[in-house]
Amino acid sequence: MYIVPEAAIADILTRDDAFAAVEQVFAAMSAGDAYNFPVIREAIGHEDALYGFKGGFDGKGMALGLKAGGYWPHNLEKRGLINHQSTVFLFDPDTGKVAAMVGGNLLTALRTAAASSVSIKHLARKDARVMGMIGAGHQAKFQLRAALETHSFDKVIGWNYHPEMLPSLAEVAAQFDLPFERVELDGMTEADVVISMTSSFDPIFGTAHISPGTHVACMGTDTVGKQECDADLIVAATVFTDEVAQSITLGEAQHAVKAGRKAKEDIHEIGAVINGTHKGRTSDDEITLFDGTGVGLQDLAVAASIVEVAKAKGIGHEVDF
Amino acid sequence: MYIVPEAAIADILTRDDAFAAVEQVFAAMSAGDAYNFPVIREAIGHEDALYGFKGGFDGKGMALGLKAGGYWPHNLEKRGLINHQSTVFLFDPDTGKVAAMVGGNLLTALRTAAASSVSIKHLARKDARVMGMIGAGHQAKFQLRAALETHSFDKVIGWNYHPEMLPSLAEVAAQFDLPFERVELDGMTEADVVISMTSSFDPIFGTAHISPGTHVACMGTDTVGKQECDADLIVAATVFTDEVAQSITLGEAQHAVKAGRKAKEDIHEIGAVINGTHKGRTSDDEITLFDGTGVGLQDLAVAASIVEVAKAKGIGHEVDF
Repeated sequence: MYIVPEAAIADILTRDDAFAAVEQVFAAMSAGDAYNFPVIREAIGHEDALYGFKGGFDGKGMALGLKAGGYWPHNLEKRGLINHQSTVFLFDPDTGKVAAMVGGNLLTALRTAAASSVSIKHLARKDARVMGMIGAGHQAKFQLRAALETHSFDKVIGWNYHPEMLPSLAEVAAQFDLPFERVELDGMTEADVVISMTSSFDPIFGTAHISPGTHVACMGTDTVGKQECDADLIVAATVFTDEVAQSITLGEAQHAVKAGRKAKEDIHEIGAVINGTHKGRTSDDEITLFDGTGVGLQDLAVAASIVEVAKAKGIGHEVDF
Repeated sequence: MYIVPEAAIADILTRDDAFAAVEQVFAAMSAGDAYNFPVIREAIGHEDALYGFKGGFDGKGMALGLKAGGYWPHNLEKRGLINHQSTVFLFDPDTGKVAAMVGGNLLTALRTAAASSVSIKHLARKDARVMGMIGAGHQAKFQLRAALETHSFDKVIGWNYHPEMLPSLAEVAAQFDLPFERVELDGMTEADVVISMTSSFDPIFGTAHISPGTHVACMGTDTVGKQECDADLIVAATVFTDEVAQSITLGEAQHAVKAGRKAKEDIHEIGAVINGTHKGRTSDDEITLFDGTGVGLQDLAVAASIVEVAKAKGIGHEVDF
C-alpha cells in the first residue's frame, strides 16, 4: 500500500487537480456511477470531539474508501495542532485490500474550495466581475483563492462578523493583483459571485443583499441547525447542490425544505449541469445558488489524484502490508 | 503512526491476548465505558462485494477507530486471496490523529474465536466435558482451538452439512490430545458446550439437539435473515450477547424477538456477567446461549493489544504521517 503523509500534500496537490477530481466525481454521482455511504458522526464524549466516517464508491473513477477523523476543538489551544484532523483511506475495489492512506487536512480544505469553484465555472455569469466573500476565516481564504483561479474577476469585496479578519482576504486578492474592498452586507449587492463560508446558526444574508444574476455558493452549512442565508433566498434562487439528500437534511436548503417553501425536486445536482442533463443557468437575471454540503466522494477522488501524482513524483512511501 | 502488516499478526497475537482484550471490552461496553457506532455495510455493485465500517470508542481502554473492509466472494477463485479482507485503523482519542494501522484478517478470526471462549468461561458449567461443534469450515477451527484452550474437555464431537470436512476439526482436537467423534445432530445431546459456526439461513438445530445444562455459543448469524438454531431454543435458553441491539436485529435472537416470543429485556449482555452485575448461569439444568454478533470494539481492542506487543517486540514500522 502507498502512504502520503500530511506534510507532503502541499507539494503534490494543486488546485487544478483538486478542481478536476471534484468536477469529475460530481459528474459521476449524477450519472449514477458513484454514491456516498451514510455518514457516521459521533460525539464521543472525550475532548468534546466529533468523530466519524464519510465513505463512498466511485465505480467510474474506481475509488473506494473513506475519510475518517473529525473535530477536536481543544487541539490548537492545548497542543498546537489543528482542530480538524482527518485521514483518507483508499481500498482496491477489485480485492478489498487497503491501497493507500493519505493525509486529509489540507486535502479537505482544497476539496471544499474546489466545490465552490466548480459551481462558479458552471453556474456564474461569464461576465461576472465582482467576487464577494461572506466570512473571512481560515477556510474562506481557500475558497477565495480557488475562485480567483477559476474565473477572471476585477475586484474582491468582503464582509466578516469580525472585520479585523478581512485583511487576510485582501492578501489573497493582492496575490492575484486585485483590489479588495471591505463592505457592509448591503454592499454585497455589487457582487456577481458570492461565497459564504461561515459557521453561523442564524441567517446572515438574504434576498436583500444579493442582486439578480448573482451566483451564490453557500459553503458553511454542513450540520442540522446551521444556516447562512434566509429561506427567501433559497426560494428565489435556482438551487444546486453536491448531494440532494444532504442538502435538504443538513445543508443550506434544510430550513426552506422543512418549512415546505422549497420542494426537494427543485434542488438539482451540480453533476447534472456538468453532464449537460440539466441546463444550469438560463438567464442573466437568474440567481443561482450552490449548496455545498461536502461528501466523502470528494475526499476519495482528490486522494486518488494525490496518490497518482505522489507515485509519479516518488513522494511518500510504499509499505508492505 | 505505527503499522503492523497482516503477515506479522500471526507472530504477535496470541489467543490469550485476544481473549483478554475481548473480555475487557465486553466488560467496558456493559459498564457504559465503551460503545459501538452504527455499522455501515454496503453492497457496492462491483465484484459482488460487501464493504463497510465497524467503528467505536472505548473510553476506558482509550481505543478509537474502525475496522474497514468486507467480503469479496471471488477473491480466492480469481486471485488466490482470501475473501474476507479487512484493516483496522486506530486513532488517538486525545487529538483525532491516526495512530496505527493493523492487518485485520487473522485478527478477525481470533477475536471471533475469543468471543465464544469468553462466553464459555463465564457461562458453561465448570464440569463440562464434551465439546460439540456444529460447522467445520475455516472459522470453526479457530472457534474450537480457542474453546479447547479456555476449558479442559475430555472429548470433541462434531457435525457438518458436508461431513467430509470434519477431519479438520479432528486435527484440532488431536493437537490437544483429545478424541474426536463425528455425530449426527441427534448425537449433539451429549455435548456440554456447543459452538455453531455456519452461514445458514435456516435453523439447523434446536431444543431436540441440546441437553439441559448445556452452554451454546451461536457464532454464525451476523446478518438479517441468517439463522442457526430454532426459535424454541432461544425461548428455552437464558440468552446473552455481545450487543443487544445487534442480537435482536441481525443476530441469532432476531427471529424469536420478531415473532414476539422473546423480549428484548430477556437478552443480557455478556459484559454484565463479566462485571458481576448479572448472575449468569444459576443452575446445572439451565441452557445458556451466547449470541455472538461481532462488534467493532472487539476489533479495536485486539488491534490495540497487537500494537502494544508489536512495538515492544520491534515488529512493524513507525511511519511519519
